[in-house]
Amino acid sequence: MTYYLLERPRTLVSLTHFSDEYESAKSSISEDLSILKRTFQERGIGLLETIPGAAGGAIFTPYMLKNEAEDFVASLINAIDDDTRVLPGGYVYLSDLLGQPWFLKRIGRLIATQYLKEPIDAVMTAATKGVPVAQSVAEELNVPFVIVRNDTKVTEGPTMSVNYVTGQSQRLEKMELSRRSLPMGSRVLIVDDFMKAGGTIRGMASLVKEFEGQVVGAAVVAEGRVENRVIEDYTSLVHVETNNENGVISVTPGNYQKQIFSNKDEA
Amino acid sequence: MTYYLLERPRTLVSLTHFSDEYESAKSSISEDLSILKRTFQERGIGLLETIPGAAGGAIFTPYMLKNEAEDFVASLINAIDDDTRVLPGGYVYLSDLLGQPWFLKRIGRLIATQYLKEPIDAVMTAATKGVPVAQSVAEELNVPFVIVRNDTKVTEGPTMSVNYVTGQSQRLEKMELSRRSLPMGSRVLIVDDFMKAGGTIRGMASLVKEFEGQVVGAAVVAEGRVENRVIEDYTSLVHVETNNENGVISVTPGNYQKQIFSNKDEA
Repeated sequence: MTYYLLERPRTLVSLTHFSDEYESAKSSISEDLSILKRTFQERGIGLLETIPGAAGGAIFTPYMLKNEAEDFVASLINAIDDDTRVLPGGYVYLSDLLGQPWFLKRIGRLIATQYLKEPIDAVMTAATKGVPVAQSVAEELNVPFVIVRNDTKVTEGPTMSVNYVTGQSQRLEKMELSRRSLPMGSRVLIVDDFMKAGGTIRGMASLVKEFEGQVVGAAVVAEGRVENRVIEDYTSLVHVETNNENGVISVTPGNYQKQIFSNKDEA
Repeated sequence: MTYYLLERPRTLVSLTHFSDEYESAKSSISEDLSILKRTFQERGIGLLETIPGAAGGAIFTPYMLKNEAEDFVASLINAIDDDTRVLPGGYVYLSDLLGQPWFLKRIGRLIATQYLKEPIDAVMTAATKGVPVAQSVAEELNVPFVIVRNDTKVTEGPTMSVNYVTGQSQRLEKMELSRRSLPMGSRVLIVDDFMKAGGTIRGMASLVKEFEGQVVGAAVVAEGRVENRVIEDYTSLVHVETNNENGVISVTPGNYQKQIFSNKDEA
């Protein structure tokens, strides 16, 4: 039962399914679910809600509690806070961390926790480095993710495109998304690995509008320091400042604590 | 315990960890592990090996048994076998499937099962569409994945590059990988979404050699039909043939059955 629920986050599994599968009475399944609920809560694994009645069942929503979130962001800061990561143009080398399942799983869970109560239909990101972040978040939310591109590839089929202005250098760019990959009217969470002024995110938001959808929020692993941020409402896990002249990096926690439960009883 | 082991595939967890964490005697932890081992085996979830002795513990290796693999490949074929997926140039639209956690998790598990007994240090893929496949496989293997690119991005830092000849059109291309992302001498599994002649995979193999590493194998979700395949040893989940003139697609199982256990007792 634990395995089955963990594999299907945010999905209603009917009591009937469990009682058929394990050849047990619904009453003993209910008892087992209460034990699981308590265990998941005590260990900060997630919320197990049971819905009574004929159409009822159990829904598992993974989350990350404040303590674990703080420990994880501290380990993220520890990994990023390394002067050799400073790249020209205020960028930071993150690809090694964004290729490690351990970090990705926790990044996905922490970002998903920020939108615990929001219905979300899809996660959107920009190619290529946002993809692992999007996949990790989508896995926790159990929804599809879509990849917006700057270059047209013949293998995508018909696309919808928008022009957007990059945040800092004010260049005009074009981004596009395969028409087929996102249903019209979807509720979309935008994610990316790194945000400077936020031009790419603003571009994705306008693409969501072209698909007649709604932006639920925007979340990034790291935000850099800029003077003219073009978007206001976003979540970041860490804040990074780099100094190109002496190549020094400074990393602090981002603004992620908006929606984190302090302890297991609040959730 | 189930949650803890599922979160850490292919990792030795010591008995001491469990007995400290759950304040239980090692003997009762051992008993619980035997029950879990039987359950994981009966349900085809994976192999739980227990290693006796002071340095011992438990290692969980997820796998997919033959029946589940056949059912999954049938559902993959069913999803791909749709004439509207045929794109110009013998390509097939797969991005929607490669953005769905349900498919990705199973693709990852099935490919990882092919290399159940092989030590693997890293998974390698080519940007952008191979990334979700690489991430899914890396998660099951619990190793990092690295992304090879055709375009140089300033945000990658120093890179190592190779020239390679594309399989069908015989063009000379360049691909590169951030030096920092792959340790020298790694044992690498190469994965991708779609393979035609195999030029990209051959290019990645030569890049592995530049990093003084060893190619453990190559696996793709779908292989197309070509006359002049440039690589011989690979795993594919499905085989796709498209006819550009009438836009008809035909999908059959790939060669994935090399290393799949027929039943729970073989594993």
